[in-house]
Amino acid sequence: MFRATVLTLYPEMFPGALGHSLAGRALSDGLWSLQTIQIRDFSTDRHRTVDDTPAGGGAGMVLRADILARAIDHASPANDRRPRLLMSPRGTPLTQARVRSLAEGPGAVVVCGRFEGVDQRVIDARGLEEVSIGDYILSGGEPAALVLLDAVVRLLPGVMGNQASGSEESFETGLLEHPHYTRPTQFEGSPIPEVLVSGNHAKIAAWRRQESERLTATRRPDLWAARPLDAQAKKRAPKA
Amino acid sequence: MFRATVLTLYPEMFPGALGHSLAGRALSDGLWSLQTIQIRDFSTDRHRTVDDTPAGGGAGMVLRADILARAIDHASPANDRRPRLLMSPRGTPLTQARVRSLAEGPGAVVVCGRFEGVDQRVIDARGLEEVSIGDYILSGGEPAALVLLDAVVRLLPGVMGNQASGSEESFETGLLEHPHYTRPTQFEGSPIPEVLVSGNHAKIAAWRRQESERLTATRRPDLWAARPLDAQAKKRAPKA
Repeated sequence: MFRATVLTLYPEMFPGALGHSLAGRALSDGLWSLQTIQIRDFSTDRHRTVDDTPAGGGAGMVLRADILARAIDHASPANDRRPRLLMSPRGTPLTQARVRSLAEGPGAVVVCGRFEGVDQRVIDARGLEEVSIGDYILSGGEPAALVLLDAVVRLLPGVMGNQASGSEESFETGLLEHPHYTRPTQFEGSPIPEVLVSGNHAKIAAWRRQESERLTATRRPDLWAARPLDAQAKKRAPKA
Repeated sequence: MFRATVLTLYPEMFPGALGHSLAGRALSDGLWSLQTIQIRDFSTDRHRTVDDTPAGGGAGMVLRADILARAIDHASPANDRRPRLLMSPRGTPLTQARVRSLAEGPGAVVVCGRFEGVDQRVIDARGLEEVSIGDYILSGGEPAALVLLDAVVRLLPGVMGNQASGSEESFETGLLEHPHYTRPTQFEGSPIPEVLVSGNHAKIAAWRRQESERLTATRRPDLWAARPLDAQAKKRAPKA
């Protein structure tokens, strides 16, 4: 079973969204587990202080290495095989491939930073893998941890059943997904594109592929340039 | 006041993490408002159906245009000046610049998709701006909406006070943030880097800049290549 342990100053934020819908049902069904650790419990002064001013000056407060190290050692002893992640805008961008590899593993220890940051020495000493969910700044790592765990949990065995996900197939080919349509056949004078109701499966597949490529090239030139080489080769090959 | 309206099949996921800490205090203090709309309330059959199978075949279910349009029209009449966002992995990647522009506006109407996707015709007819928080697949738009609103709310007037954020300054120059250190001065035999306790502010600033550049070049070659031209020019200019 996938075991998630979240280290946070706001354990009341969990399970939050993860307690409902797909992830929530999977949690009740015992398909994964979620433990929260209050970092503040590892402070040693009577004010339960966990942070201090940055060495060298500057704005904000820094989470102390010694206190966070004690919390990590409690949550994840040396023989714990789970990766230790630190949600941080400085981290490696999260990808669906990393999500999949996490889902195939024993779980994750997820550290949520707050304040200006976390003392670098505990990141190094405890081998924290810095993970970023995107290029924007959050109030803390907690909303990022919710996103990471939601992405992982839906891939766990038994959570989605056999339901294939087109979004995923699309991402795996490095393309954005094509547009979707469903009933009613007319919406405010707008019909479903004719090809989709033609019953011609080859034409439908070709149209969807073309729409995916058009969308990706327009909206995400970065993905378009980085798509797998075999896809690029296929695209370049003359049509028979 | 910034007004957020979230359209979802899981209103119970809100405010969730946004009800605590920085965003939660700001919500209690009336610095922003959060309304949720249950899309299912706009269904017309007795089973409260909101989705149907995709035209042209394929896995998953598609959220119906007519039902979502009614929900949007209820939540956001034609004269509503707020942008209408649809959280979607096909969307434009969220950036700190977009977060800032949202925070400077009147609010946001945030549509959370579920299932395979949303009928394209309602996206077009209601001018939904598709926004992606990153290149991974979630169980639905809700965790993404929590992230987007968390990022926006911390920038609203009065929420953080005058607390400058180094992370933000760093992002605005297109660089990742330098490492942080705080007391204790020794952690498991590891000292705080000498320059940071030197008291030499010019040296400290130079060291931090250098660390930011090193981290960005190593971890995020994409950001490093895309950083503002004046930063690149400064870097290329010979030292006086």
